[in-house]
Amino acid sequence: MDQQILPVAPEKSYRLLNHGPTVLVSARFGGVDNVMAAAWACALDFAPPKLTVVLDKSAKTRDLIEKRGRFAIQVPTVAQADLTHRVGHLSLADTPDKLARAGVELFGIEGHDLPFVAGCSAWLACRLRPEPGNQAVYDLFIGDIVGAWADGRVFRDGHWRFETADPRLRSLHYVAGGHFYAIGEPVIVPDESDDV
Amino acid sequence: MDQQILPVAPEKSYRLLNHGPTVLVSARFGGVDNVMAAAWACALDFAPPKLTVVLDKSAKTRDLIEKRGRFAIQVPTVAQADLTHRVGHLSLADTPDKLARAGVELFGIEGHDLPFVAGCSAWLACRLRPEPGNQAVYDLFIGDIVGAWADGRVFRDGHWRFETADPRLRSLHYVAGGHFYAIGEPVIVPDESDDV
Repeated sequence: MDQQILPVAPEKSYRLLNHGPTVLVSARFGGVDNVMAAAWACALDFAPPKLTVVLDKSAKTRDLIEKRGRFAIQVPTVAQADLTHRVGHLSLADTPDKLARAGVELFGIEGHDLPFVAGCSAWLACRLRPEPGNQAVYDLFIGDIVGAWADGRVFRDGHWRFETADPRLRSLHYVAGGHFYAIGEPVIVPDESDDV
Repeated sequence: MDQQILPVAPEKSYRLLNHGPTVLVSARFGGVDNVMAAAWACALDFAPPKLTVVLDKSAKTRDLIEKRGRFAIQVPTVAQADLTHRVGHLSLADTPDKLARAGVELFGIEGHDLPFVAGCSAWLACRLRPEPGNQAVYDLFIGDIVGAWADGRVFRDGHWRFETADPRLRSLHYVAGGHFYAIGEPVIVPDESDDV
């Protein structure tokens, strides 16, 4: 694999989520690792960078996050569509070998004791910002982004490079019932923000 | 224009945002209409349907929403990339003719006194759920979706039809500096959620 995992500057880390991809959420606690899919993840702030993610009360990964206070968000690729759908529908509660059955391979990043999913295009290490009201009422979790990395083949110098990368590295955007869309072609408009 | 605006069932309304498009936020108060762009909007719940949107304190539209307690979220198209970028960078505060300069045409939907943006692919009428803490600390606004409609050419029977519609109707996914991606091609995996 010629993947090259490069750090992303904190002030650019929102760009990994800005285009609205479906993500994988992972967490580790008490010797248990789990991974789930989430379509409802969103950037929340530029600096310090923050994000939101909606985690259903039935999700085992949510339980791990609440206990550990840390989690990872990663951007899966078209090549991982089946994996993404499987981790979104299998539950560790009744499928102890969920990760193996979904084809998930985990890896580590130094300084962050979290289960990162191999083969993704970007990874965000997050620290849970305890907001008991939001968590209980809305299933809404807020994380401070404390580390960010991307696959240099598809995100470098602060920008996604989907148009020149292998199409299997494009991000996934879930609708329902196993139907995703891949991200498509660039649309560039003159950036007149300083002129008008 | 052969656009046909069809109602979307409340329980399917999350699908209008599920794939993570950049949206337009609009509001009306005291005889003033405004429209802004937001990349940070996200579904929050299926039923009753809710969404989140991040609105900077400098945004005039935010002020209208806080006063009125209602707003609209709409999904702009590739054909509206320039419009979307302009409403995202011009401010009503120093550009009183912002909407005209951005090429925004507004229309009404019966029963909802809100400024809806013509030419979009989907529209959501929202009632603000007052959450002063989230609004003040995180610029995070929660809305109950009280009405949903879509352009039948590109969303019908509860599903986006980007692959068969005019490519100019595809959704926009903003990155930065005038760079968007259009949504791309479908990726379909077997939906085994009931089997495995």
